[in-house]
Amino acid sequence: MRIDIITVLPEMLEGSINCSILKRARDKGLVEIHLHNLRDYSTDKHHRVDDYPFGGEAGMVMTIEPIDNAISALKAQRNYDEVIYTSPDGDLFDQKTANSLSLLENIIILCGHYKGIDYRVREHLITKEISIGDFVLTGGELAAAMIADAVVRVIPGAIGDEQSALSDSFQDNLLAPPVYTRPAEYKGWRVPDILLSGHEAKINDWKHEQAVERTLRLRPDLLE
Amino acid sequence: MRIDIITVLPEMLEGSINCSILKRARDKGLVEIHLHNLRDYSTDKHHRVDDYPFGGEAGMVMTIEPIDNAISALKAQRNYDEVIYTSPDGDLFDQKTANSLSLLENIIILCGHYKGIDYRVREHLITKEISIGDFVLTGGELAAAMIADAVVRVIPGAIGDEQSALSDSFQDNLLAPPVYTRPAEYKGWRVPDILLSGHEAKINDWKHEQAVERTLRLRPDLLE
Repeated sequence: MRIDIITVLPEMLEGSINCSILKRARDKGLVEIHLHNLRDYSTDKHHRVDDYPFGGEAGMVMTIEPIDNAISALKAQRNYDEVIYTSPDGDLFDQKTANSLSLLENIIILCGHYKGIDYRVREHLITKEISIGDFVLTGGELAAAMIADAVVRVIPGAIGDEQSALSDSFQDNLLAPPVYTRPAEYKGWRVPDILLSGHEAKINDWKHEQAVERTLRLRPDLLE
Repeated sequence: MRIDIITVLPEMLEGSINCSILKRARDKGLVEIHLHNLRDYSTDKHHRVDDYPFGGEAGMVMTIEPIDNAISALKAQRNYDEVIYTSPDGDLFDQKTANSLSLLENIIILCGHYKGIDYRVREHLITKEISIGDFVLTGGELAAAMIADAVVRVIPGAIGDEQSALSDSFQDNLLAPPVYTRPAEYKGWRVPDILLSGHEAKINDWKHEQAVERTLRLRPDLLE
C-alpha cells in the first residue's frame, strides 16, 4: 500500500510516520508513506498557498491551483483509489473505514489548513471526505496521521502479534475487556482472582462477560 | 494553562507541539506543554514499562508502577484539574469538551500504548477517559496531540483572528458554509456569483443558508 500526504506542514507529520508501527511497517515494505509539501506546487514566487476568502469571511483559504498541481503530479505517476480530504463534515471515520482503506493500493490524503480549502477542490478533485469527529483542529495533519496509523496497523504483518489487532475494541463490536499485568497486588489494589487461576476456559468466559458488560454499560449503541 | 503529557514515545509528539498554533500559543505564554517519557519513571534497570497480561491475552500491558510514579511526581508539584486517559471506551471527544477543557488550569494526559494499561490505573489514578472515535490506534499519542490542538486553539489569543475560531464548524451546531478564494474562475469552475457581488447582507444570508442546508443534508443530528 502507498499513502501520499499533501500538507503545508510536513514537519508536523514526520514524527508520527517515523515512529512505532508506521516505521516498522515501512521498514518491512508493507507500506510506503510519502509527505509532499504543498508549497512546492505553488507557482507563486513566494510559494503562497492561501488567499483571502471571497465574501469577507475571517481566516485564510487554501487556493485551488497548488492542490490541483500536487494531485495531478501524483496521478500522472500511478492510479489512486481515493483522494481523501479530512473535514469536519465528511463521513465519520471508524474501524470499518480503516479496515476497508487498508485493502486499497494507493491513496492520497490532503490535509486542510487555515480556514479551509477552496470548495471547488472538494467538488472536483476529492473522492472521499472523512471526519475524525465533531471538533475542529488547526489542520488536517493530525487527522491524516491518525488515519494512516489506524489503517496501517490492520495491514497483516504490521503489528507483531496479529491476535492483538483482532482482539482490539470494535473488531467484534465489543469494547475490549479490562487487562492487568504484574504485580498481582499494588498498594492493596488486586488483580481479579479469576485471572490468576490458570483456568483458561473460565478466564475466556470472564473476559467475554466483561466485554459484553462494559459494552452494554458504556456503549450500548455498538450492539444495536 | 499547562498540559503534561505522559508517553512512551515523546518523539511522536514533538513535531505537533512545536508547529503551528501550538508553537505560537506556547511562544505567547498562553500554554505550557510538557512531554514526559514514561521510561524515566520506571524503577526497572532496563526501564521497562510493560509486561505480559494476566490470563494469557495477546499483546503487552503497561504496568501500574511507572505510571503511578509519573503522575505522583507531577501532583507533588501542583494541583491538577483532570488526569485524562485516551481510550476507545471513554467519553467521545467533541468541541464542547475541547471548550470546557480549555478553561482548566492544569491537566495531565496519559497516552496508552501496546495492548492497553493495567486496569487499576484507570480505576484509581485517572479522573476522565476520553475517546477520539470508534477506531483503534497504535497508541494514545495522536489522540493526545489532537486533544491538545483542539483545546489550545480555543484559548483566547491562540489563533490570530478570533473570529475565525468562532465561525468554525460546531461552535453554533452548524457545519461551516463553503469557502472560496481567488481566482474567481479556474478551469471553468466558477465561484458562486453572490460571493463576488459585494452585498454584505446578502452574502451573510447566503452563508447562513448554505450552513443550514449542508447541516440538514450531511449532519441532521447536529440540529436535533
